[in-house]
Amino acid sequence: MSILVVGSVAFDSLETPSGKRERVLGGAATHFSLASSFFTPTRVIGVVGEDFLPEHEAVLTNKGVDTTGIERAAGKSFHWTGSYLKDLNAADTLATDLNVFAEFAPKIPAAYEDSEFLFLANIDPVLQLRVRKQMSRVKMVAGDTMNYWISAHRENLLPVLRELDVLLINDGEARMLSGESNGLRAAETVLAMGPKTLIVKHGEYGSTAYFSERSFGDGVKRRPFRAPTLPLGEVMDPTGAGDSFAGGFYGYVASQPRLTPEVFRTAMFYGSVMGSLAVERFGTERLQATTRAEIEERFGHLREISHLA
Amino acid sequence: MSILVVGSVAFDSLETPSGKRERVLGGAATHFSLASSFFTPTRVIGVVGEDFLPEHEAVLTNKGVDTTGIERAAGKSFHWTGSYLKDLNAADTLATDLNVFAEFAPKIPAAYEDSEFLFLANIDPVLQLRVRKQMSRVKMVAGDTMNYWISAHRENLLPVLRELDVLLINDGEARMLSGESNGLRAAETVLAMGPKTLIVKHGEYGSTAYFSERSFGDGVKRRPFRAPTLPLGEVMDPTGAGDSFAGGFYGYVASQPRLTPEVFRTAMFYGSVMGSLAVERFGTERLQATTRAEIEERFGHLREISHLA
Repeated sequence: MSILVVGSVAFDSLETPSGKRERVLGGAATHFSLASSFFTPTRVIGVVGEDFLPEHEAVLTNKGVDTTGIERAAGKSFHWTGSYLKDLNAADTLATDLNVFAEFAPKIPAAYEDSEFLFLANIDPVLQLRVRKQMSRVKMVAGDTMNYWISAHRENLLPVLRELDVLLINDGEARMLSGESNGLRAAETVLAMGPKTLIVKHGEYGSTAYFSERSFGDGVKRRPFRAPTLPLGEVMDPTGAGDSFAGGFYGYVASQPRLTPEVFRTAMFYGSVMGSLAVERFGTERLQATTRAEIEERFGHLREISHLA
Repeated sequence: MSILVVGSVAFDSLETPSGKRERVLGGAATHFSLASSFFTPTRVIGVVGEDFLPEHEAVLTNKGVDTTGIERAAGKSFHWTGSYLKDLNAADTLATDLNVFAEFAPKIPAAYEDSEFLFLANIDPVLQLRVRKQMSRVKMVAGDTMNYWISAHRENLLPVLRELDVLLINDGEARMLSGESNGLRAAETVLAMGPKTLIVKHGEYGSTAYFSERSFGDGVKRRPFRAPTLPLGEVMDPTGAGDSFAGGFYGYVASQPRLTPEVFRTAMFYGSVMGSLAVERFGTERLQATTRAEIEERFGHLREISHLA
């Protein structure tokens, strides 16, 4: 079934210990949809400027991503400049040029209205909520957010959390949102804010899903589930790792007939696989080059390195 | 088969967000041997002062730990004072009173000479090497070290590394020892220094074993293996978590007829179980109170939260 993702389509200028790149295609919706495209039909809503050329759009359409919802506006696309020279696990933002993204008002094409799965990537929670209300008939809603919205726009974020089947955030965001330093207590506090299920990403150490009684519609509260990451000899560019995780996770979920605990676990492993691929090259290079066969092979490795037998 | 552990038996004065304790029984050899005692006969070599009372010794002997090798010296026992108020993942050392431990010269009782497994806990690498040479007939040698020996006594540590079947250290120590920030490259560099297998502990995020061609004596280099931790609602006192992990890991290995990849994986899970128990109460309280049945139950939980099916 198809996923509709709403989020940024951007250009990133990056510096990492492996090198430097100027204006490579990026943005949460880009990374997400490339990753999910290996599992299920994916549709994007975003906004770009006149610098978004056919060659950029082709990165998405070559993988079958539906770009009908990418609006063209006068001006330049969102441009993020960051450095990972100090710490590969934490981007140092050097410049954020919102450009056309500053006035982003998501419009849902008629052809997208039958999307069954909605992913609200990290954008202003006011917009997240608006899109969610317009897509009231979806089967499932998942979303992301970040420190800025948690701290400065909390009152707008809280109603979004109540709409989510799955919230995906990282350790720092979970601590900030909950005010708890202990991981399990932070998760329980966040679940009490609304999301049926919470996935907390631990960067190079994997991810943990925390479930509520509402996770699978059967009133049963299950133990958390932990997915590992693959040890990688080189992380060239961590940008988009979390969005690629989300795309792999949600893409697999949307490809399955029903959300069971086993589907959820498998989806987390696919998320981890897509994240591990994404960081091996700059920008979208690695996801552009991968195949479903390679994804399956890596899935097998991930199982092998984490299962007793 | 029996394990001989050489290391500190000490008193710890601690402050954590959960409270404060004065002079509770601690030390690497104490935590290690309590954890390993659930799996295999364990013998300790250490030194204590006149403040080490029968009630302290009983903590070990009640679990069947052989304390013949704990030497009594005139003076006070090693006393460590630390705080976890700032960060539960990193102890802030307030005082290190070595006392009788400053002159520790391990002596191996005749009754210990047939020990098949040797564990060199975190002590001066000169002493680690001396004990290892005296116990030349053991089946396996595992060991720990810390930043201080890595930075200030590197030349003494290197010959110890060449004697080890398994080295257990944490992320920071692996980075410091190797000079590499990437986890996989750090591990390969450390393996090239001598240990057949390396276990890197990631604190609350689990642990990873890295294997060499020499790990299982068959010339085959295997993929790393990752063991998760249990999400805990309260970490009361992290002191001794790593030693308890080592005790659970090595105790299980020593209880098995042969070191196979599957035994190694299972041992890492038992290590994680013992670490998770240790931190739930202050000092040795929790390991004193646990049972093999509880350990098995927790092992089941750890499998459940990390396995696809």
